[in-house]
Amino acid sequence: MHVAVNAAVSADGKLSSRRRDRIAISGESDFARVDRRRAAADAVAVGVGTVLSDDPSLTRFDEPHRADVHGPDAAPPARVVVDSRCRTPPDAAVLLGDPATYVLTSEAASEANRDALTAVGATLVTAGRERVDLTAAFEALAADGVEHLLVEGGGELIFSLFEAGVVDELSTYVGNLVIGGRDAPTLADGEGFIEEFPGLSLDSVERVDDGVLLEWTVRDG
Amino acid sequence: MHVAVNAAVSADGKLSSRRRDRIAISGESDFARVDRRRAAADAVAVGVGTVLSDDPSLTRFDEPHRADVHGPDAAPPARVVVDSRCRTPPDAAVLLGDPATYVLTSEAASEANRDALTAVGATLVTAGRERVDLTAAFEALAADGVEHLLVEGGGELIFSLFEAGVVDELSTYVGNLVIGGRDAPTLADGEGFIEEFPGLSLDSVERVDDGVLLEWTVRDG
Repeated sequence: MHVAVNAAVSADGKLSSRRRDRIAISGESDFARVDRRRAAADAVAVGVGTVLSDDPSLTRFDEPHRADVHGPDAAPPARVVVDSRCRTPPDAAVLLGDPATYVLTSEAASEANRDALTAVGATLVTAGRERVDLTAAFEALAADGVEHLLVEGGGELIFSLFEAGVVDELSTYVGNLVIGGRDAPTLADGEGFIEEFPGLSLDSVERVDDGVLLEWTVRDG
Repeated sequence: MHVAVNAAVSADGKLSSRRRDRIAISGESDFARVDRRRAAADAVAVGVGTVLSDDPSLTRFDEPHRADVHGPDAAPPARVVVDSRCRTPPDAAVLLGDPATYVLTSEAASEANRDALTAVGATLVTAGRERVDLTAAFEALAADGVEHLLVEGGGELIFSLFEAGVVDELSTYVGNLVIGGRDAPTLADGEGFIEEFPGLSLDSVERVDDGVLLEWTVRDG
């Protein structure tokens, strides 16, 4: 499976403020670009932290572009939440309507939490004991036809993906503001690397709106 | 006084790992660029956190470029540490040799700490009660002939400068690696903004070494 990470960050690398409010970092051209990326993907993924702070629906995409790429009868891109303990609220926007949503979870999720999500139509994929085994969970998604996965955050999930070595490309839109904050979420949070940092190759640099889009390929270890 | 902030960050906006080790983020071309920036500046500043973690000497600069800009007899750029409590160790590299170093401090610094620094030749500038009043301290530097100040970090100082509204330009070299870590230092740490984020205008985008140099002007509030 091809895994692309896409996120907008401030000039100082933050996804949001320490309050985790949604902040307008990019503009219309970048939104349109992300809608095209979603249209081309088989599924769009976020971590449970993003569900809890932003409540995204993940239903927006560029419909004509999807028809171009996947044919006129293609279903919308699937939705994926990475959520070790099934903390996604059953009324979260990401679970409402179509298409059905995969929740990648672990054995640490309680039966009650799991049942609440399956009751509202989520497809649970369980892999890993305390945390989601991303490699195994992605294999299950791939077996279901997900070849291109677009990950939109947050920083905890993005770090976990780099830690698991499953990221193929990274696109960051760097916006024209400073957010600051030692407790503000960044593009890659988690424990962090202390050596053997994942290496990138810069594929393209393009001014978009009032910022810049950087597209990187992840180099093999 | 013109205040320029310059720093190298990972693709995820970190200055270093959570261990605060010095990590090679940029390469030879960017080092040479920074040496030219230092040569053109009247003074080069860091925060005490950077002194404690990196022990930089701040003595390296592009000597021919300095002669071009400031004339053949120009003294080296002055060195500045922003250090509210005079925690800079008296044997820190930034205090050794020439040129003399300004320590911008506050009334919260103990007499013993102050004396230890003046004993090794530091010039203390005291402004502010608990923290350095950056505006007042910079006015004192300006009165001493510092018209162009180059700030090289760390993230706590850089945030404080944005908070005080004294930054004129921001240059970030974005390197080709992911560091990660919710506790890793970022370009702008501190408390962080939660609204009225400082706005930037993107002046230039240039590929340098294996990363990209972004040059921003800070827009007036």
